[in-house]
Amino acid sequence: MSFNCIVAQSGGPTTAINSSLAGVIHAAVNSKKVNKVFGSINGIQGVLNDNYVDLSDLFQDEKSINTLRVTPSMFLGSCRFKLDKDLTSPQYKQIFDFFEKKEIKAFFYIGGNDSMDTVARLARYARENDKDIKILGIPKTIDNDLVGTDHTPGFGSAAKFVASSLLDIAHDTYIYDKPSVTIVEIMGRNAGWLTAASALARNSYNMSPDLIYLPEVPFSRFEFLYDLKQTLKVKKNVIIAISEGIKDEYGHYLCEGNSSGTDSFGHSQLGGAAKALEHLVSTAVNCKVRSIELNVLQRSAMRSASKTDLDEAFSLGENAFDLALKGETGIMLTIQRDSQSPYVSSISYTDVANIANKEKQIPREWINERGNDVTEEMLAYLRPLIHGEPTLIYEDGLPVYMNIAHLTA
Amino acid sequence: MSFNCIVAQSGGPTTAINSSLAGVIHAAVNSKKVNKVFGSINGIQGVLNDNYVDLSDLFQDEKSINTLRVTPSMFLGSCRFKLDKDLTSPQYKQIFDFFEKKEIKAFFYIGGNDSMDTVARLARYARENDKDIKILGIPKTIDNDLVGTDHTPGFGSAAKFVASSLLDIAHDTYIYDKPSVTIVEIMGRNAGWLTAASALARNSYNMSPDLIYLPEVPFSRFEFLYDLKQTLKVKKNVIIAISEGIKDEYGHYLCEGNSSGTDSFGHSQLGGAAKALEHLVSTAVNCKVRSIELNVLQRSAMRSASKTDLDEAFSLGENAFDLALKGETGIMLTIQRDSQSPYVSSISYTDVANIANKEKQIPREWINERGNDVTEEMLAYLRPLIHGEPTLIYEDGLPVYMNIAHLTA
Repeated sequence: MSFNCIVAQSGGPTTAINSSLAGVIHAAVNSKKVNKVFGSINGIQGVLNDNYVDLSDLFQDEKSINTLRVTPSMFLGSCRFKLDKDLTSPQYKQIFDFFEKKEIKAFFYIGGNDSMDTVARLARYARENDKDIKILGIPKTIDNDLVGTDHTPGFGSAAKFVASSLLDIAHDTYIYDKPSVTIVEIMGRNAGWLTAASALARNSYNMSPDLIYLPEVPFSRFEFLYDLKQTLKVKKNVIIAISEGIKDEYGHYLCEGNSSGTDSFGHSQLGGAAKALEHLVSTAVNCKVRSIELNVLQRSAMRSASKTDLDEAFSLGENAFDLALKGETGIMLTIQRDSQSPYVSSISYTDVANIANKEKQIPREWINERGNDVTEEMLAYLRPLIHGEPTLIYEDGLPVYMNIAHLTA
Repeated sequence: MSFNCIVAQSGGPTTAINSSLAGVIHAAVNSKKVNKVFGSINGIQGVLNDNYVDLSDLFQDEKSINTLRVTPSMFLGSCRFKLDKDLTSPQYKQIFDFFEKKEIKAFFYIGGNDSMDTVARLARYARENDKDIKILGIPKTIDNDLVGTDHTPGFGSAAKFVASSLLDIAHDTYIYDKPSVTIVEIMGRNAGWLTAASALARNSYNMSPDLIYLPEVPFSRFEFLYDLKQTLKVKKNVIIAISEGIKDEYGHYLCEGNSSGTDSFGHSQLGGAAKALEHLVSTAVNCKVRSIELNVLQRSAMRSASKTDLDEAFSLGENAFDLALKGETGIMLTIQRDSQSPYVSSISYTDVANIANKEKQIPREWINERGNDVTEEMLAYLRPLIHGEPTLIYEDGLPVYMNIAHLTA
């Protein structure tokens, strides 16, 4: 007896989230037990609005699956949508009516913290109402802040973008004979994992970034200026990496004045921490000061993706399908690091209730005592995650991605 | 009888300027007529300060030449230094004394507008003072604003970065169900070539950027808001590409309030045009508005370089050496487009006096009448320049570049 399944994506984009989608589709279309695999457009909203595509139809050949694996952002679109807290809300009935009508026996949700909350609620509803459907979460986030998993898909590629960009910025910085301070702002609201990855840019001739500031440690303007001046005494060109979410001793974001409100989850929309610091530095030191925001390319530039990351993301998707077949539900898949050198990882899973609405920050001992750099342990953790380069297909000088006409209308 | 030669780099970085340097070195070390090829550190300042490296020594094997070809920014460092206008200034005597002392018979200067002015002055001094040395200019600039050449090395790679980034940003933008305006700021002070390249991101499913604004056409806030609102009527997510240097009808930069002074050539230091426009749009339309500055990665991200660009840059370096051997001096090498389809280019040269201190803007007829887009002619000109991907060597997930320890001290 065959059944249908449905998959959706939610939260912020990464370069690896489509690779997980490709993994689910690949496993589903190759399974004799599956009739159709649907894709809900704009996360769970597609289920609520009857807005979906037939993925079994769109991805019949390996070529399209392989193109999806190297397509950035989210083929199915996203949403930032919280389900009602009350499970008796008609929302839930509507969702499960849709599942029943479409003969859907498995729902896969690829997302971060907030999406795992949706998975937890739907799984609970299914259990409490005896619904015959498996609900599984597949992690993704460039922030690497999900608990229960060694790291998150999407993080390795973003980390590789950050590390390569810091190396390129170093080459761009050292060319002038005059002293300079360059401040690079990296994504990360409450967790500094991505900013920590800037330290991977260091090599035999490049010691920068010279100072690294993470949200895990309160930022002192006084100590920062002291450290900067000390560094400028021994080094002509100083490069500083900061998380967008660093806060001062009073818990205020550096960019507080520049805040542009909150998103629909109530998170502050950040941006401008580097600009704020640029102004501070300009008043304190007498040299060229510039700030650079690495911006959305951190999460969407496929040409900097990590093959290790994309392959793990694909494998998570495939494994999610297999676990659903085995009857698992209410879980989030996880990545385990089985060996550090050589790096070996495997796929496992955990109860999604252990994951939802929690945030994993960097352990304090992976940050140096002064709070302006990371330790060798941190670097050892990061290094394997950026390994390998995916093979992109280019046409007329640009990468070939999956057609997303269904989103651009 | 063998002689020595010297090469230097000046102005802003590009991903292709080291490829031209590699071309000069490759030709020189393989010539039996050359004893040593020196590299002056920090442009002409290295000659004035006796600060140089022995490149024949550093680049004895093909491997190091090939690594230099894919190293971004400037291996020899840069300067923004104007020679005295008066040729009787002791600066010139000092420079030519250095050349004589080191038995240097050829000087190659890789740079943009301002660097070609240096080449012109040195060539004139040599001629008027019967100095036995050839002075040659090799063009580079991401701005593509040098006259006398079909395009400039460095531009194709920057254009490819811009086009790929706009495609990635499109994938990042269309995922949400809600209307949005994304403003992308691209480098270009007075010439909009690089911003025009954003249009290459359009394909069968992506029509963005939807509006493109270049410095060649005065920017009207009134017409812009009208066009934006019209676009938002038919399209949910609007992406706008603007040059950092767009000016309003009164000749004021959009970012005037944000200007951070002038550089040592008296050029305004721009930045913040997108931010200024973001504020304008926020007051006029009721949807999510964000601005993205593509920043220095445009000129330094080797992973987005164009092979066509790097190969032409290398060939310019080789040809410069050959032309010096043939006795040419006071010239700048140029690229000619011999055929459009298939694209074929060749190297030529022109009197540097025809180049220095001139700027090539986009012809008005390559911009649409309304001044908010480019024409098919513009696109046909741009397309071949971004073709091909260089082969980078990766180690531990990061590209391997030439060691620039001589600059980072």
